[in-house]
Amino acid sequence: MKKNSTSLRVRLPVLVFALEVLVVVLYSVFVTYDDQTNALLQNNKTQPLENTVYQDYPFFADIQVMIFIGFGCLLAFFRRYGFGGMVFNFLTATFAIQWAILVQGFFHFYYDGQIHLGVINLINAEFACAVVLISFGAVLGKTSPVQLLVMALLEVPVFGVTEWIVVEHLKINDAGGSILIHLFACYFGLGVTFILYRPSLNEGHSKEGTTYQSDLLSVLGTLFLWVFWPSFNCALTLRGDDQHRAILHTFIGLSASTLTAFALSALLSKNGKLSMADVQNVTLAGGVTVGASVDMMISPAVAYVLGMLGCTACMLGYKYLSPFLARRLRLQDQCGIHNLHGLTGLISTIAGICAILLASEETYGPSLYQTFSYRAPQQGDPQLGELQKLIPGLEAGLGRTAKEQALYQVVALGSTISISAVGGVLTGLVLKLPYLASPTDEFCFDDELFFNVPLDEDQASESVPKLITLMYLNVITFTLKMKGNAQYSYLL
Amino acid sequence: MKKNSTSLRVRLPVLVFALEVLVVVLYSVFVTYDDQTNALLQNNKTQPLENTVYQDYPFFADIQVMIFIGFGCLLAFFRRYGFGGMVFNFLTATFAIQWAILVQGFFHFYYDGQIHLGVINLINAEFACAVVLISFGAVLGKTSPVQLLVMALLEVPVFGVTEWIVVEHLKINDAGGSILIHLFACYFGLGVTFILYRPSLNEGHSKEGTTYQSDLLSVLGTLFLWVFWPSFNCALTLRGDDQHRAILHTFIGLSASTLTAFALSALLSKNGKLSMADVQNVTLAGGVTVGASVDMMISPAVAYVLGMLGCTACMLGYKYLSPFLARRLRLQDQCGIHNLHGLTGLISTIAGICAILLASEETYGPSLYQTFSYRAPQQGDPQLGELQKLIPGLEAGLGRTAKEQALYQVVALGSTISISAVGGVLTGLVLKLPYLASPTDEFCFDDELFFNVPLDEDQASESVPKLITLMYLNVITFTLKMKGNAQYSYLL
Amino acid sequence: MKKNSTSLRVRLPVLVFALEVLVVVLYSVFVTYDDQTNALLQNNKTQPLENTVYQDYPFFADIQVMIFIGFGCLLAFFRRYGFGGMVFNFLTATFAIQWAILVQGFFHFYYDGQIHLGVINLINAEFACAVVLISFGAVLGKTSPVQLLVMALLEVPVFGVTEWIVVEHLKINDAGGSILIHLFACYFGLGVTFILYRPSLNEGHSKEGTTYQSDLLSVLGTLFLWVFWPSFNCALTLRGDDQHRAILHTFIGLSASTLTAFALSALLSKNGKLSMADVQNVTLAGGVTVGASVDMMISPAVAYVLGMLGCTACMLGYKYLSPFLARRLRLQDQCGIHNLHGLTGLISTIAGICAILLASEETYGPSLYQTFSYRAPQQGDPQLGELQKLIPGLEAGLGRTAKEQALYQVVALGSTISISAVGGVLTGLVLKLPYLASPTDEFCFDDELFFNVPLDEDQASESVPKLITLMYLNVITFTLKMKGNAQYSYLL
Repeated sequence: MKKNSTSLRVRLPVLVFALEVLVVVLYSVFVTYDDQTNALLQNNKTQPLENTVYQDYPFFADIQVMIFIGFGCLLAFFRRYGFGGMVFNFLTATFAIQWAILVQGFFHFYYDGQIHLGVINLINAEFACAVVLISFGAVLGKTSPVQLLVMALLEVPVFGVTEWIVVEHLKINDAGGSILIHLFACYFGLGVTFILYRPSLNEGHSKEGTTYQSDLLSVLGTLFLWVFWPSFNCALTLRGDDQHRAILHTFIGLSASTLTAFALSALLSKNGKLSMADVQNVTLAGGVTVGASVDMMISPAVAYVLGMLGCTACMLGYKYLSPFLARRLRLQDQCGIHNLHGLTGLISTIAGICAILLASEETYGPSLYQTFSYRAPQQGDPQLGELQKLIPGLEAGLGRTAKEQALYQVVALGSTISISAVGGVLTGLVLKLPYLASPTDEFCFDDELFFNVPLDEDQASESVPKLITLMYLNVITFTLKMKGNAQYSYLL
Repeated sequence: MKKNSTSLRVRLPVLVFALEVLVVVLYSVFVTYDDQTNALLQNNKTQPLENTVYQDYPFFADIQVMIFIGFGCLLAFFRRYGFGGMVFNFLTATFAIQWAILVQGFFHFYYDGQIHLGVINLINAEFACAVVLISFGAVLGKTSPVQLLVMALLEVPVFGVTEWIVVEHLKINDAGGSILIHLFACYFGLGVTFILYRPSLNEGHSKEGTTYQSDLLSVLGTLFLWVFWPSFNCALTLRGDDQHRAILHTFIGLSASTLTAFALSALLSKNGKLSMADVQNVTLAGGVTVGASVDMMISPAVAYVLGMLGCTACMLGYKYLSPFLARRLRLQDQCGIHNLHGLTGLISTIAGICAILLASEETYGPSLYQTFSYRAPQQGDPQLGELQKLIPGLEAGLGRTAKEQALYQVVALGSTISISAVGGVLTGLVLKLPYLASPTDEFCFDDELFFNVPLDEDQASESVPKLITLMYLNVITFTLKMKGNAQYSYLL
Repeated sequence: MKKNSTSLRVRLPVLVFALEVLVVVLYSVFVTYDDQTNALLQNNKTQPLENTVYQDYPFFADIQVMIFIGFGCLLAFFRRYGFGGMVFNFLTATFAIQWAILVQGFFHFYYDGQIHLGVINLINAEFACAVVLISFGAVLGKTSPVQLLVMALLEVPVFGVTEWIVVEHLKINDAGGSILIHLFACYFGLGVTFILYRPSLNEGHSKEGTTYQSDLLSVLGTLFLWVFWPSFNCALTLRGDDQHRAILHTFIGLSASTLTAFALSALLSKNGKLSMADVQNVTLAGGVTVGASVDMMISPAVAYVLGMLGCTACMLGYKYLSPFLARRLRLQDQCGIHNLHGLTGLISTIAGICAILLASEETYGPSLYQTFSYRAPQQGDPQLGELQKLIPGLEAGLGRTAKEQALYQVVALGSTISISAVGGVLTGLVLKLPYLASPTDEFCFDDELFFNVPLDEDQASESVPKLITLMYLNVITFTLKMKGNAQYSYLL
């Protein structure tokens, strides 16, 4: 096996089968059914229709559509990298979820020596998978499927640890995952692409453009993400009014960012025309920006303003920051994830902190201590008993104040960014190892490298100009020869 | 800024930002959470899992798919107007929903000086949005995004008023919106296109055709509309058996019209081949035709017959009526909305009236007074008490007879058509104002006007014939010059 | 009307209208509402929100997406048969469901002289429809829409009878339909294609390839099937933990087969590249393989292994078995249904039998007698009373042992395969009758035959080479003429 060959014939099967054996062994030793899935634990007190599957499965299915179809189509925007975008997304997502079931299982669903499995684990695993796919956006077209699987293999555990720190220990508000998902994914992806820097790509690449069809397919992906984003942002919030608000705010935020994206796309283009890249990406900014405060009582108007702000930051990022990052900081960010997930994630974090500082019993009533569960009085505090009269199931919290919590949010922000950036850089170093089928610069963004690509009518016609030129030169040469005279060489 | 320029650079951002400021101000002053969304109104008696979001969100999500993906793909059928079809649909729909939340909010969800917001408002707003998008079908490819936003700005309030008259005052049966949504949208759209008449388009337009790919994308849109149409028709019906029937009838109606569409497409074509335009549009006729009686006990067989009838009317409309309307009545109806929404809407209205006249306690039992709530006895009528023993929650009605109600349906039909037609004409006049970036005739149905269109392999090959011709002429000219003789000019 | 003409002008409308009249008459005589849909049967004890429509409709909608969009896109993979794949799927599916409502209605929902209709019937009918569409895969591109409707007309009743035997009489475990749906569909389709054998197609066909766009569309179909397959496999299982497990196992099985498919695709290709046909088909194998035991306590690890096994069998089938079947056994299986549904179905059946033999009260607790209802004690057995204390609603069973049941599964396997194969052969003979617009060999896989296909830019460019050649010859001829000399003929 040659060191730098890009043939997948040996390396992909070897890696995949190794991963599969690992997964099967770990599943068979550690994974069992949870109490909603285990037949043995059902009895005459369990109501089949109250099984949590009926609460979780609709959100799971919606997020599946986002992951496999939304991301898949969105990433298929390159001229001749549609297969790569859609299909490597499929491959990477599939493995990331399998792997996240194990990794997150150890952190969150492990007891009695086993990981307990239900659809709720799948939803969590899909979030980890979304993280990997966002990071993938930074290196789209520059990585082999072998590298992508290795990236997923490494990113999921780093994410698992961060999630464990942030969710279990810092206990932050981040219902839509702006910090934990979007910022983590962004800085991890930037770390990877920093190491995988390819100077030649800064000069532009002949395959980097789009076609009419690829733009349409990509915007279809955007629409799937847009439509189901409320399910993404609300899937893990508290049931009831919290989830209801999360849906409303996500919709309003996306809606505001979409309108703004169209305005800015026209405003910032030289010829007053819209750009499809803006429609494909910038319209989605609002979904991230509302994330950290999506379940709070921020009011519909503020959700709208957040959508506008996020969109503006994202658009300016694409226009001015991305070229700068690529040329000066070795950060070649193919899909501009720093704009769509980084800048918007930062705004979202700040908005979340403001919303936390402003949250009061006046606005939330006693359910303040549910939405902000860490503010509930600690076990033993007499105030807890008072509150439990109002909200029967209220659990003891940490007795934090709003200001203390704001600090925790900042700590979470800092640690997420640092861990992810370092993790990304280290992962990038691993991806530079030989035998991982990394494409040469010339074959970046080109499906020919990893796929048997059908010879299209399109492609057939591509060869026509060559044919003409050949014939033309032929005729001219012949004519010149005939005249034995070079005076007509202007024709060439 | 030039009066007739089609550059969006200034006009689109100016309009969008003005609308956004308007929306934000109105949202912040008037829009608050409803009692299912407001944390303050939750207490130990409210069950989170009984929040109405769980009844409404699945239907909301399905209709989102129809609006953004179904309509988006369906409207992308023109050869070089795929971006316009899919993306202007995205823009217009987004604004229409934002705006309808306010307009319908004032009519239906306004109390205590505020509009109260939950997912149920979003479903209502999506219906208003569907109205705008159907009307858009009449002027597809002939209008700028600026004009489309202005159209949405004007159409939503006119629709809001009509809805208020028809639903709140006339109190009609129209679960699937055949009168209120489809007929309104149709005659509004025809009013607009009447004013925007472009004689030159009657001669045919080089960009008006489809391609293999655009036909496939468009039929994909049809399939999304087809699959989720039952959710559209049942979203606002009474829960329980009414909603169950609405789903059944919509499915059966669509199913019958699909089969019929294939038969008629073959029958009416000269060469015995199927036409994709028929598959894209006429198959959907049944969804409209069952609309006005979709929740009633019409029987599955009648739903089937309605699907067949609607499809036949729609197909004949495309074949014979549309060309006549375009040439004689200045009604250039790009997508044939008069066939798919107008003719079918009329049949549906008549079917609805028949179903109302035939409805009896024998068929419906006491739930007659729920499905036809205006027939319930008035407050104070002793019969009301009797019925309330059978149906505990039954509300007092208007004590109308079936025949009276039939009259109300006719009045609703008449007023909907008149208001919408007049509203459409007036809106058309506004859209003719300068500075709205209206495309010239030549650039109708052409994405080049408003988008940075990628240079495709397709397009690259388009220039090949020109290149050849140029070279060919070059060679000939040279040869002739060489011989100093015009006798070979037949080659040109 | 000519015997072998392929014009649809008369034959399609005649057949469709005949079928529609048949359906309308039978619906009006025999079909009524079931007790969840009939207004008359609602009273003050029925809770609208407990209507079964809320349990069934989400699964129905998901399967609709699979049938109309998933299958539709997947079957659009041929270069110039995208319309045929997507649109004939639409036509055939629509009729198959209408027809299955009647056929299955007579077998399963018939009482008081009527077929009783609710959304649950539609789910059942969609399964029958899936059967027809899988069989369609064997003859894709070689059959006219008239033939496809006739095939649906004949296959649905044969399936109905088989279902009646297997489900009502043999009472087998087959939640995901591996035996009843996949194996039936496979062997029926093979029976049909055996009779419709076209020797010339074994030499390859110029239209049989794919294009870049058609491959992308087809993989999009795969993704829709992949995402919603858990809904397919769980729609008719017991509510509660059984359904929960079915979702988990389907997801895990698909996930394992996807990863394996990528590995094998690279491993078995000569140049170490991935093939899109593998991504489109082989990734789905796991969904079938887990089918027969999908609701049982097989453990997540075993679901994973089943996915890997099914995928391997499927891939080897495509690679080695399909060419053999086509050349030696006259089985030209266009989509390779024998690999994706046959081989996997066999593995699934064996796995199901093993799971049945291993099932014990130790693993399942008393709910053993629900998941394996035939093992519940018979009416009158005192053990039944004991169990009913633990599970209040438990119904009397047949008192079968696990081994007895294994035998029943084998009998079901045998009878399903025999009935379907014979049914397929007989149906094939009917499809060979004249007047059914069967395409000639030359026009197989060609949309030109049955559709008005738009003249694409693509196609326009196809004619360019011809144009060049013509001009080139012209110039050369002229030049030679000019010189009166043949010495330059090397240019030709």
